[in-house]
This record gives sequence, structure tokens and C-alpha cells, in this order.
Amino acid sequence: MDSSTKTSRPRLVVLGSGWGAMSFIKSLPANISEMYEVVVVSPRNYFLYTPLLPAVATGTMEERSIVEPVRNFIIGKEGGRGRRLLCSCSRACPLRRCCFPAAAAAATAAAAAAVATAAAAAVGSVNNTFGIRGVDQYCFYFKSIEDAGRLRARVSECFERAALPATPEEERKKLLTFVVVGGGPTGVEVAAELYDMIECDLSKLYPNIVSIQIVELMDHVLSTYDRAISIYTAEQFKRAGIKLVLNSRVAAVEDGCVRVVNKANEVTEIKFGACVWATGIAMNPLIRQLQEKLPGQSHFRSVLTDECLRVKGSDGSIWALGDAATIDQPKVSGWVANQQGKYLAKVFSSTKITGNPEGGGLRVRVRARARARGGWYFHKGSAAYVGSDKAVFDLPRLGPLTGTGAGFVWKSYETMSQFSFRNQCLVAADWLRTKIFGRDISRV
Amino acid sequence: MDSSTKTSRPRLVVLGSGWGAMSFIKSLPANISEMYEVVVVSPRNYFLYTPLLPAVATGTMEERSIVEPVRNFIIGKEGGRGRRLLCSCSRACPLRRCCFPAAAAAATAAAAAAVATAAAAAVGSVNNTFGIRGVDQYCFYFKSIEDAGRLRARVSECFERAALPATPEEERKKLLTFVVVGGGPTGVEVAAELYDMIECDLSKLYPNIVSIQIVELMDHVLSTYDRAISIYTAEQFKRAGIKLVLNSRVAAVEDGCVRVVNKANEVTEIKFGACVWATGIAMNPLIRQLQEKLPGQSHFRSVLTDECLRVKGSDGSIWALGDAATIDQPKVSGWVANQQGKYLAKVFSSTKITGNPEGGGLRVRVRARARARGGWYFHKGSAAYVGSDKAVFDLPRLGPLTGTGAGFVWKSYETMSQFSFRNQCLVAADWLRTKIFGRDISRV
Repeated sequence: MDSSTKTSRPRLVVLGSGWGAMSFIKSLPANISEMYEVVVVSPRNYFLYTPLLPAVATGTMEERSIVEPVRNFIIGKEGGRGRRLLCSCSRACPLRRCCFPAAAAAATAAAAAAVATAAAAAVGSVNNTFGIRGVDQYCFYFKSIEDAGRLRARVSECFERAALPATPEEERKKLLTFVVVGGGPTGVEVAAELYDMIECDLSKLYPNIVSIQIVELMDHVLSTYDRAISIYTAEQFKRAGIKLVLNSRVAAVEDGCVRVVNKANEVTEIKFGACVWATGIAMNPLIRQLQEKLPGQSHFRSVLTDECLRVKGSDGSIWALGDAATIDQPKVSGWVANQQGKYLAKVFSSTKITGNPEGGGLRVRVRARARARGGWYFHKGSAAYVGSDKAVFDLPRLGPLTGTGAGFVWKSYETMSQFSFRNQCLVAADWLRTKIFGRDISRV
Repeated sequence: MDSSTKTSRPRLVVLGSGWGAMSFIKSLPANISEMYEVVVVSPRNYFLYTPLLPAVATGTMEERSIVEPVRNFIIGKEGGRGRRLLCSCSRACPLRRCCFPAAAAAATAAAAAAVATAAAAAVGSVNNTFGIRGVDQYCFYFKSIEDAGRLRARVSECFERAALPATPEEERKKLLTFVVVGGGPTGVEVAAELYDMIECDLSKLYPNIVSIQIVELMDHVLSTYDRAISIYTAEQFKRAGIKLVLNSRVAAVEDGCVRVVNKANEVTEIKFGACVWATGIAMNPLIRQLQEKLPGQSHFRSVLTDECLRVKGSDGSIWALGDAATIDQPKVSGWVANQQGKYLAKVFSSTKITGNPEGGGLRVRVRARARARGGWYFHKGSAAYVGSDKAVFDLPRLGPLTGTGAGFVWKSYETMSQFSFRNQCLVAADWLRTKIFGRDISRV
């Protein structure tokens, strides 16, 4: 790092540009650069509003409507002195309070080392194949904007191929079978959006022998939700012709074919045009490295933190949030990345963190906040879109909420949840465009 | 081709999905499927509104706003019997009235052969490197939606790299130098859009040491336009800081460096972050194959046709339009693909083409149309956007028109020229979005 960046302020390094990191940065006060030199390290230069990713995969929503440049979050907070690195962090040495980010796929950019006084790790999780053969090769993951774009292109390709007069009937059937592995909110929403697209836009243009199937390990989808919601969703999917393959696990994936095993150990083969892997998250390699270097860290998916989000064994210099963190107290385990980010911003703006262990003040404050809070579950994954303008909500006090009314609430909520007025407008315009003109089927 | 497509109607094969092909298909009457079995053969399933491609490369316009699915053009014209093939035509045997389309990059789709009674070749041209070393490897072409997307991603990458604190000053300067080869309408508009993006959206976020340079063989840009327009554009670019490297040809392109030779044979090296090749079109390989099989064909870039657009030597069974065609009479040489498509649609809908040579009736009709027509030049390339909301028009009767007023006319014209109401709305919304919120700098 060149000399111009040397300052007397402590350096605060933020790893990642997802929910936790962005909500943290957005909540920092405008004068934060007087207290810290803030450095954001991420391989992406934008924040992605993940809940609407299934809508992007079918063209209900456009890619650019749900991404937000990281630089927009730090405008006005730099004071001309703050800096941002575009790097992917490839190695972290927490005990030396130092990380070496190497420029992402950069042949020309020199590697830069950022010596951190304090670091906030918010790098999220990565996909987990559970070691199942063929998943990495033949399935579509569903975490990034590129994943959504790839799926959209593949679905379009399947329909085009199926429309060729030379395509035999069996091949046509295979091409128009879409398998989603995982009956959680992501899997359910991908299936619902696919159904919407086919029903509204494709059935009038292409041969309509489409089959959408969800493979789920449990005996019902949305298993973390209220049971009434699972039942409602199953009924809704039955009406829509979406097939639920329950009590089944994936044994292997081959080119155009997934092998599914049910509880009775019977093997079924499902031939597909596209298979979406919407299940399983694993520890980010960066967090694994961090874990290996710290004492007392043993969790299988994230680093342990205290209730102030400070990583255990890091001597108060590293804070973790979102999927990267597991809080060592059951009662606050549901804190979502978004709220953690806001909380952490309060901590950093009210107290000058110098890297030394802090006293009990923070602890007291966070405990009070945790008690005062009730509806966190509403924010994280307890709403899902189930197709045909219907949605389901699992609200902790009001109970389950389903149907077209819930669908309208869901769309409004997702629109208003965008971080900027710009994206709120774009998302609203996209719903409107899809309603009026339908989805674009161009294979761009 | 399977038996279900065998009909008694003559088969009309349309090659391509660009300006000529789409304007032809759009102008066909709704009952065309009673007369012909229409088959569209193209590697793309969408039409691209090319004049707004420079705007897409900078994010002024979104990709999906200027593409139109081919299927939308043929809805209502199929009568349930018309068919469309998604194929790229890899070999054409005109004398046998037969072409063998092979599915584009298709391992699974079987190759299909379409026996044509009549064929309309509207496949456009391809890029021409003039044999200059390194162009294919290091330059960005500018013909397809993928080209625009790649350029957008590269420009974003250049700015991100330049913003890294570890990037040395010289490298930063190189990264932020953008070279456009070719001072025609495309080159001018790419430079203008780049300037707009940097001026409006990037200069407040990134180090602003940007240089945009246009390399042009002639002594002025827009050399096919009225001289007053060239001078106006040069002045406008001077104010904007866009450098014109005139009287110069490109000798070679290397990784990050273009070698330019002026009239005095002096060699200059320009280091760049991105270099756009906006000059030179070459004959489509398909048209070359067609040419080789027909007698009396010798033009270096397209097939010769008579004034009815019938390919010479094809016995009246093949018609060519757009860049694929050169009409063997100077006075109609300016017909644009769009108007050719409309004309050809009239021919096909009013006369049953059976593949036999036609009499003089068509000839008379087309001559009358050619005489009656005046303003064709307005449609093809005689308007250009020059940045800062300004545009230039070269109108055959009114003379040159320049400035902000012309810019407004240009934007209105491009908006209304979209083939569908949907895209008119999307393009208008994109202008508005860019004005209000600026361009998205996310490196999606």
C-alpha cells in the first residue's frame, strides 16, 4: 500500500459487500472518516438484493434493478480521505491483525496489503454440494447475479431447442423438465417464478409440456415455516402442476439426469433440461482460515462470536456478522445480518475501537437491544413468493398469512426494502412492466 | 425435418433476424401462412435495435430495452401452422434451392435441413480487421449485444483497477485511456456515450484522469456527412476533451497498446485500457458461399441483385437485402434494409413466388417506388449522437441540424423507431432513469 494512505486514524477493514457489510456501512454516520479509515474489501463492487434473485432468473425483474454499487453507500462518508479497495481477500492472518487481499483475477494490479486495526468479517457463505457427485458440474447454483443470468439463459435455450421441429418428443420432454433441489424459500420461489414465466409468457409461444419438480428431503416444503403455510404452498403448487418429490435425497447428478433416492431406498431418475441447486450452504474459505488461526473456534460453518459480535479469540479486533458469525448464546442466534450491521455501526460510531479488549459497556447495551427486539424472524426468510401473485408470510405474532393479499404485501415489502430510492423505483417499474408487457424471452 | 412440416405451400426461408429480416416479417400480412410456410433461420432468437447499442455499452440504456424476440414478430402470422427454426445456417446450396442449417452450438439438437422454394438472405455483415495484427485479440468489436456488455464490463473494470491505491500513476493513466478506432457514426457515438458516462456518473467516484481518443483515417470524423456536421462534431469533442487522432491508420494492436501511423509515416503508440474497433465490415461467410455457387457474382462484400432484390444467377429463387445485397444499379444503391424488407414483404404478399423467373411487373413497380422515394438517407446513419445531450442530423433537403434541439429530436426519433410499444416505453423509461438516477456502475 502506498504512503498516501498512511494516516493516524485506526483502519477499519470491512470484508464483503453483502447484507451485513452494506447495512453496516450504510448505518455509519457521515463523519465516520474522522474516526476511522474505512476500507471495503470485496471481489464484487456492488450489493445484491438476494430475495429478488428468483425474479431475476425469469426476467420478472431486471438484474440492474436489484444491485447497488458499493460506492453509492460510501458517498458522503469518505470526506475525501476514506478509501475502498477492490480486491478479493485471499488470505487472512487475524492474529497479526492483517490481511492480504489479492486483486480478483488481476494480472496487472499489484497485490495490496491492508493492515487493519479492526476488521468486520461479513463474507457470507458459499455453496455446499454435500460431496454429491455431479452437482458442481451439472447443476445451477443460486447465490449470485451470474447464477440467475445463467439459469435464465439456459431456460430460454431449453425452450428454443424444444421448439425445433427436428427435436424428438422424448428429448423435448426432457428439455422442458426443470428440477429444483431444495424446498426452502429459495427453491420454492425459483419454482414459483418459473411457473409464472411459463404460464404467462411462454405457453403461447412454445410447446407446452413443461414439468417443474421440487426435490425435498423432508415430507413438506418450507419446513422451517408454520405447518399451515407448508400445506397451503403444497396445495398451491398442486394446482399449478408443480410436482413435489418429498422424502427424497439426491444421490448423484449426471448430464441431464438427477438420481433421487426416497426413504424406502428406491432410486428414481429424473431427466431434466435444467437443475437448480437451492440447498446447502458451506463455510466461506476465508472464515475457515480465520478459524484455523484462532483458539476456541470449532463451529462447522462459521466463527463463534460473543453477543457483541466480536470473534472469540481475536482479542477484540475482529467482528463477524451474517452467515460468517455464530453467536455463542442461543437467545440471540436469530439476529440477521442486516440488524447486526446496524448494531455494529452504532458500536463503531459511539466507541472508538482501538483493537484492545473492551469492557462491559457494550455487552450491557447489546443485551438490552436483544431483549427489546421481537420481530426479527419476519425479516429473515419467513416470507416466500409461491406463484400466481400469491405469497406466504410466517409472522411471529400474527401467525401465517397467505394468498393474493399476502402477495401484494410481499411485493410492496420487497420494493420498499431496497436500499435506495433509485432501486425502489426500478423494482416497482419492473413489476409494472412484467404485468403490462410480460417477460422478455430474448436469449441475450 | 420431420413429416409434420410437409405441406403443399411453398416454403419461404428467411435467413437472419436483423433489420432486413424483421422489417420483412413484420410487414408480411397476417394471412401469409395461407400462402407460404415461413421459416426463420437465425442463431439469435431476437432482433437488436443497433442504433442504440452505444447507449447500452455505457448503461444509458439497458440491454433488454432494445431487443425484441423474433417470436413476437411472427405471433398472429403463424395460423398454428407456420414454424420457426432456431439454427445457424452453416452451409447454403442455392442452386439446389436448399440450405442445411446446423443448430447453433448444439450437441443435442439434430441438424435439420430446410428445403426452400424461395429464400430471403438477410444475414448482415461481419467484422473486418483488414488483416491487422492483434485486432481480433485485443479490441472490442461493436456489433452485438454481447459486444456492448463486454465493453461495459471492461470500462467498469478499468475504473475499479485505477481506484486501487496500489495502482501506480502510469498504469492508472493507461487504464483510463479509451481508444475508439473509426470516426464514423458508431465510433463517434461510442466516444460520446463514454464521455457522458464519465462526466455524469464516474468523475465523482473515481480518479478523473480519463482520456478518450478517436483514431480516424480521414482528416475529419463523420466523413460521409455534410462538412458542417463534421466541423461541429470536432468542436463539440474538443470542448469535451475527446482527442481526435486524424489522418492515421492502425498498424497493429498489442495487449494494452495500439500502434498508429499517420500520413507522414510517423508511428505513435497509444496505451489503452480498452480499444473499440468501430470500423470495417466484411462479407458474411454464408454470403461468400452463396456467391461461390452462383454465376456472375464478383462483388467484394455482398451478392449482386437486380432492382427487385433478386440475387443474380439464382433463377429468381433467392432474394437478398440489407448488407448482404448490392443492387446492380447505382440509383437505388441507398435503399436501406428496413425499406427493402417492407418492399419485399409487399412483393411476397401480392405475388405467389414459386421459384420460377418472374416477368416485368415487379420491375416496373420497384422502379416507380425508387423514383418516388427521397429521404432514405435520413434513415440510415445520417444522424449521430455526439454527447452532452447534443446530436447531429444530415437531412437531404433541410441540410445539417445540430445542437441540443437536435439531441432531443434524436432521442424522440430513436424511441419512436422501436418496433413495439413495449420497447418504446422501455427506451423512454431508460432515458428518464438515466437523467434522474444516473447510470449503474455495478460490474455485473
